[in-house]
Amino acid sequence: MKISIYFMGLIASLLCVTSCSADNNDKEWRALDNKNTVLLTLPHGKVIIELAPQFSPKHVAQFKGLVKQGFYDGITFNRVIDGFVAQAGPKEDSEKDKSVPLVGMESHWSTPATWSFTKVQDKDFYAAQTGFKDSFAVAFEPASKAESTGKAWLTHCPGVLAMARQNEADSASSHFYFVIGQAPRYLDGIMTIFGRVVYGMQHIQAIQRTAAIEGEYAVDSREHTPIVKMEMMADVPKEQQIIIEVENTDSPAFAERIEKRRHRTHEFFYQKPLPVLDVCQIPLRSRLVK
Amino acid sequence: MKISIYFMGLIASLLCVTSCSADNNDKEWRALDNKNTVLLTLPHGKVIIELAPQFSPKHVAQFKGLVKQGFYDGITFNRVIDGFVAQAGPKEDSEKDKSVPLVGMESHWSTPATWSFTKVQDKDFYAAQTGFKDSFAVAFEPASKAESTGKAWLTHCPGVLAMARQNEADSASSHFYFVIGQAPRYLDGIMTIFGRVVYGMQHIQAIQRTAAIEGEYAVDSREHTPIVKMEMMADVPKEQQIIIEVENTDSPAFAERIEKRRHRTHEFFYQKPLPVLDVCQIPLRSRLVK
Repeated sequence: MKISIYFMGLIASLLCVTSCSADNNDKEWRALDNKNTVLLTLPHGKVIIELAPQFSPKHVAQFKGLVKQGFYDGITFNRVIDGFVAQAGPKEDSEKDKSVPLVGMESHWSTPATWSFTKVQDKDFYAAQTGFKDSFAVAFEPASKAESTGKAWLTHCPGVLAMARQNEADSASSHFYFVIGQAPRYLDGIMTIFGRVVYGMQHIQAIQRTAAIEGEYAVDSREHTPIVKMEMMADVPKEQQIIIEVENTDSPAFAERIEKRRHRTHEFFYQKPLPVLDVCQIPLRSRLVK
Repeated sequence: MKISIYFMGLIASLLCVTSCSADNNDKEWRALDNKNTVLLTLPHGKVIIELAPQFSPKHVAQFKGLVKQGFYDGITFNRVIDGFVAQAGPKEDSEKDKSVPLVGMESHWSTPATWSFTKVQDKDFYAAQTGFKDSFAVAFEPASKAESTGKAWLTHCPGVLAMARQNEADSASSHFYFVIGQAPRYLDGIMTIFGRVVYGMQHIQAIQRTAAIEGEYAVDSREHTPIVKMEMMADVPKEQQIIIEVENTDSPAFAERIEKRRHRTHEFFYQKPLPVLDVCQIPLRSRLVK
């Protein structure tokens, strides 16, 4: 037992030499920044979203601006496809819709040689490497030559929040979607992901589907799930705030958990699974502080 | 345009030479067999399940026997983990629980040289090949030598129905689960999948979660979602039957659809995704006949 714990610790330290940045990343849990946390109230429950200004600053700025205006209050989820996405936005081509400026694609970023993340898997189906950075699932293409830079992007795991768009790359405005099914990773790099659900994903899953199966009655738009209220957590009165901490994916504890998941030792696994991990099949933990 | 349609048809025919069996497989839609179709009534909606006696005969026989007895009526979903599974069964170690005989693992089957399926992808993360057989997502390991047989198994995509078990391989009895999140394919080959949801998946997604996030109140077992009724469709009075047809995944039309999904031509894709497909990210269509 002692050996095994020592061994796991060793793996975690080794991983961290190459993959974890140094500052304050030893802690297993991380507080959310209320200024980049959204409280979404649905008729059937509350949902908390962590925004990612470090990856998609323009989209986060646009979205926060709209949230603060109350833009989304009363808007409905008007394109909800089981196993795919739950999408909301103002009525297409309405004055409200057209009032919002377009925002340019933020599909990936360049990574200098010093960039680091917690690697989950090499040779993923869609990327050279996958892993986590700041609790977001990322894909990574290392630099091909010493003098060049690498490339990283957020990946479409269940629970991510992304901006919808028209056919043109830089045509996002206010319509957004949550991924509610098997990761549609073919959208990676051509849509801007800018947040993720950290609490209440079951309420996102329960949003009324709008696309029925062929032959079934059409779902009346009056049955579409509305957004009761969307607000920045920092603007919610203190006593009504919901304070969440999330798993710090840059910590040695997380790297250890990944390795345990890869090499399962529980006797339930009477045949061991292949030691591969789908980055979208690793649930990240959250905990309620208040 | 004509060229492209011709081209798609050609691809479909070519695929079918190697991958589609000959009899009655040209049709795009396929009727369900009422004797192997389950109608699950939840408090919030109806769900239809197609069973797979051709792949997991012992599990289907056991499950059908229990359904016909009314064994599951009133039982609750007592282990529901967001992004993972919704599991139901009688109270652990109760008389009812212990009354059910164990059933041996049906994790894979041997494939003779004549076996065929509609291939979706080579070198999937977890298998040499993936595809569909009889509208079930399958993984396939071809024979290594001419005289040996290959191996195929059902894979844990969202919506599959599988039997839970204890630690031992052959310890399944009556507890079952639906996959409700990103495919947990590390369970492939060590659990018996024996059905899939063909209608009402959104109601499965809305089943009350039992595992709360850390620090949150425990979900009272009285809030767990019950099974109102579970019956074989053949035993439902004719006027109350719901008749569904499902996409015939052995048809040329389906093979064509797969290729279109792999090579997306819509202008929305201003950069083309990699021409790879995740077998669990291909929604199969159903349509309501009555």
